[in-house]
Amino acid sequence: MTITLKSTPAADGYRMPGEFEPHDGCWMIWPERTDNWRMGAKPAEKAFVQVAEAISRFEKVTMLVSGRQFVNARNKLPSQVRLIEVSNNDSWMRDVGPTFVINDQGGIRLVDWDFNAWGGLEEGLYFPWDQDDLIPRKVAEITGVDRYKASLVMEGGSIHVDGEGTLITTEECLLNPNRNPKLSRQQIEGFLKNYLSVEKIIWLPRGCYNDETDGHVDNLCCYIRPGVVALNWTDDQEDPQYEISQEAYKLLTEATDAKGRKLEVHKLHQPNPVIVTAEECEGIDQVEGTIPRQEGDRMAASYVNFYIADGGVIVPLFNDPNDQPAMNKLKELFPEREVVGVYAREIILGGGNIHCITQQQPKP
Amino acid sequence: MTITLKSTPAADGYRMPGEFEPHDGCWMIWPERTDNWRMGAKPAEKAFVQVAEAISRFEKVTMLVSGRQFVNARNKLPSQVRLIEVSNNDSWMRDVGPTFVINDQGGIRLVDWDFNAWGGLEEGLYFPWDQDDLIPRKVAEITGVDRYKASLVMEGGSIHVDGEGTLITTEECLLNPNRNPKLSRQQIEGFLKNYLSVEKIIWLPRGCYNDETDGHVDNLCCYIRPGVVALNWTDDQEDPQYEISQEAYKLLTEATDAKGRKLEVHKLHQPNPVIVTAEECEGIDQVEGTIPRQEGDRMAASYVNFYIADGGVIVPLFNDPNDQPAMNKLKELFPEREVVGVYAREIILGGGNIHCITQQQPKP
Repeated sequence: MTITLKSTPAADGYRMPGEFEPHDGCWMIWPERTDNWRMGAKPAEKAFVQVAEAISRFEKVTMLVSGRQFVNARNKLPSQVRLIEVSNNDSWMRDVGPTFVINDQGGIRLVDWDFNAWGGLEEGLYFPWDQDDLIPRKVAEITGVDRYKASLVMEGGSIHVDGEGTLITTEECLLNPNRNPKLSRQQIEGFLKNYLSVEKIIWLPRGCYNDETDGHVDNLCCYIRPGVVALNWTDDQEDPQYEISQEAYKLLTEATDAKGRKLEVHKLHQPNPVIVTAEECEGIDQVEGTIPRQEGDRMAASYVNFYIADGGVIVPLFNDPNDQPAMNKLKELFPEREVVGVYAREIILGGGNIHCITQQQPKP
Repeated sequence: MTITLKSTPAADGYRMPGEFEPHDGCWMIWPERTDNWRMGAKPAEKAFVQVAEAISRFEKVTMLVSGRQFVNARNKLPSQVRLIEVSNNDSWMRDVGPTFVINDQGGIRLVDWDFNAWGGLEEGLYFPWDQDDLIPRKVAEITGVDRYKASLVMEGGSIHVDGEGTLITTEECLLNPNRNPKLSRQQIEGFLKNYLSVEKIIWLPRGCYNDETDGHVDNLCCYIRPGVVALNWTDDQEDPQYEISQEAYKLLTEATDAKGRKLEVHKLHQPNPVIVTAEECEGIDQVEGTIPRQEGDRMAASYVNFYIADGGVIVPLFNDPNDQPAMNKLKELFPEREVVGVYAREIILGGGNIHCITQQQPKP
C-alpha cells in the first residue's frame, strides 16, 4: 500500500541523505529513443550495460524498460540486474526519478517532483514527457514507499546535498524561467528546504559550458563527503569552461555550509573537448521536437558526473589523457571505495553521463 | 536477482500449494481490450475494482496494468491495491500468470508455462499473445522470485490441486490438440508431476458447457480443502450441462486422491443461463482475429469460479435465484472464512469469472 502524503519531509522528520551514505540500490532506465541515441540506441545499450554491471558489483541495480525493449534488455543485461517494465520517454533516471528521503527510525519515503523535459514546450529537449513524469509514482508502487508530491519543476541532477543541511545548485537551472516562472528564488528555496530538509543553499551561477540541461550542478560540482566537494576544472583560459570553473571555485571556497564549515574543493581536470562526429550524427533519427545533434557540437564532458555506489565509484572515461589523473584523484578522495572507470562516450553523446542515468535508493 | 532454474520443482522439493493454504497476496490485470470488454471496458473496470477491493480486505492485491491505463486505473482503484505497469494482451491472470511453488524451508519459486491464448492460431481467442506470455517472467523480476520455465502450453485455470499430491484437470483442455499436439497424455502428466509435485491426476472428460477455454476445470470443479471439492451442478435434464455434471460427479465420487482418500463432492447449483443481449454485443469492438460475441450466446456462468483469499472467499453472483443458495452453501463449506459476493455479469461477458482474473501468491 502506497499513499500520497499531504505533509512535507521536513515536517515529518525526513531528509535527503548524501549520495555517499549507505544505499539499498540503484535505479536506471534502458536507452531506447532513436532520435537521441544513435544507431537504434545499440551503442548506448552497451554503455548502459557496462554501467549497470559495474554498479551491480557494489549494490542492487533495477533497470526500468519499456515493454517493447523488455526481452532485448533482459537478454543483454547480466542476471543480477533486476528488470522492470516501465514506460518512459528517455533514460535519464537522475532527472525523472524520485528523490528518496529517510528518517532516523528506519523510514524511507520519496519525493515526486514535476518534470518538464528540461524546459517545457519552448526550451525543453523533447515532447511529450508524460511517461517520464509518471516514473516516481510507479517507483513508489514497485517499492511500496510512500510518496510526497512537490509542485516544483526540478530534476535530480540539478541538486547535490551533504545530508547535513546543505544543498548546492545553480541559478542557471533552478531560477531559469523555463522551469518555475511563477516562483521567486525564496519560494524555490522554500520547496528545497521543505522537501529535502536542508537549511543552507549554495547557489552557483552557472553549470558546465554547453550543458543542455541548463547547467545541472551534477556535471560541475558534487559532494565527496560533508565539507568536501569535487569541481570540474580547466586551466585553459581560452576554454569557455575556464571562467565558469573560476567563478564556482571562488564561491565554493568562500562559502560556509549549514554546519558553519568551510568547504574543501578538489579540482577534476576536464577531458579535451568531446566533439560530435559526422558519423555519430548520421546515426540519429531526425525528427522535429527533439533537440538536434550536429557535427562539431561540443558535449559537456566532465569527470564530476560519476556515481557513488556502496563501496564503489563509477567514473565516466573518454579515452583522454586526463582519464588517468581523474581516476587517481578520485582514488585519493575515496580511499575506502573501489574506483571503476567506464568508457562513456556513447552516454555523453546522448546529453548526459553516468550520474545522469542513475538514481540511488538510500538505506533507511 | 532472479534466475531461471534448469531443474524442476519436484526435483528441488517445491510443490504447488492448494489455493486454501495461506497467501502472501493476489495478482490481477486491469481490463482494457475493447474487442472483448464492452463499452471501452468501463463496466468491466467497475467489476474488477469491486473484486480487487473485496480481496484486498483479506490480503495484498497487486494489479498489473498497461502504460496507457496506468493513471486511469490508479484513480479508480483504492489506494491499498498496488498498481504495477506490465504490458498485456488481456486480463486473465489465472491463465497467463505464473504458478507459484513453495518448499518447507520458506522458499518460493514460480513456474512459467507456455501460453497460446487458449488454442493458438487456429482455435485461440485472440492474436497476438506475446505480452501475456511474458507476464510470469516479469512477475519473477518484480517479486525477486526464481523461475522455472516449463515447455508445456498450459493455463492456470485448467488445474486445481489439493497441495497434498492430487491434481484435477479436464481432458477437453489439457489433451486438446490445440495445446500440446506433440505430447502424449503420459508426457503431459509428467510435466504436471515434475512442475507441481503431484502424484495423482484425476482426469474429468469435459469442462462446463460452452466454456470457450476448452473446458477449464476451474469453472466446473475446485478444491475446498484436501479431500473436499465443489462441483457445478444442475438438475435440469434438458440443460447440456446436466450430462457433464453427472459424468464428473460419478468420476469424482469414485476416485481416490494421492493420499488414498475418497472425495467429498458438494454440488453448487448453477445460475439460470446467462445470455448475452443485443445491447451488450453492440458495445464490443468488431475486429477479425478475436472470438466474436453474439446476441443469444450463452456464457459459461458457474459459482465454482470463486477465489479463496486468506480468510475470505470471493464469489461471482449473477442476480439469480441461485445466488443465495450458493452463498449459503459456501458459508457452510468455509466456516472460518467470510464469504463475499460480487456481481460478476460484466466479467463473465468477457469469457471468465473471478477465479480466472486472479492468481494467488502463496506464503512460503
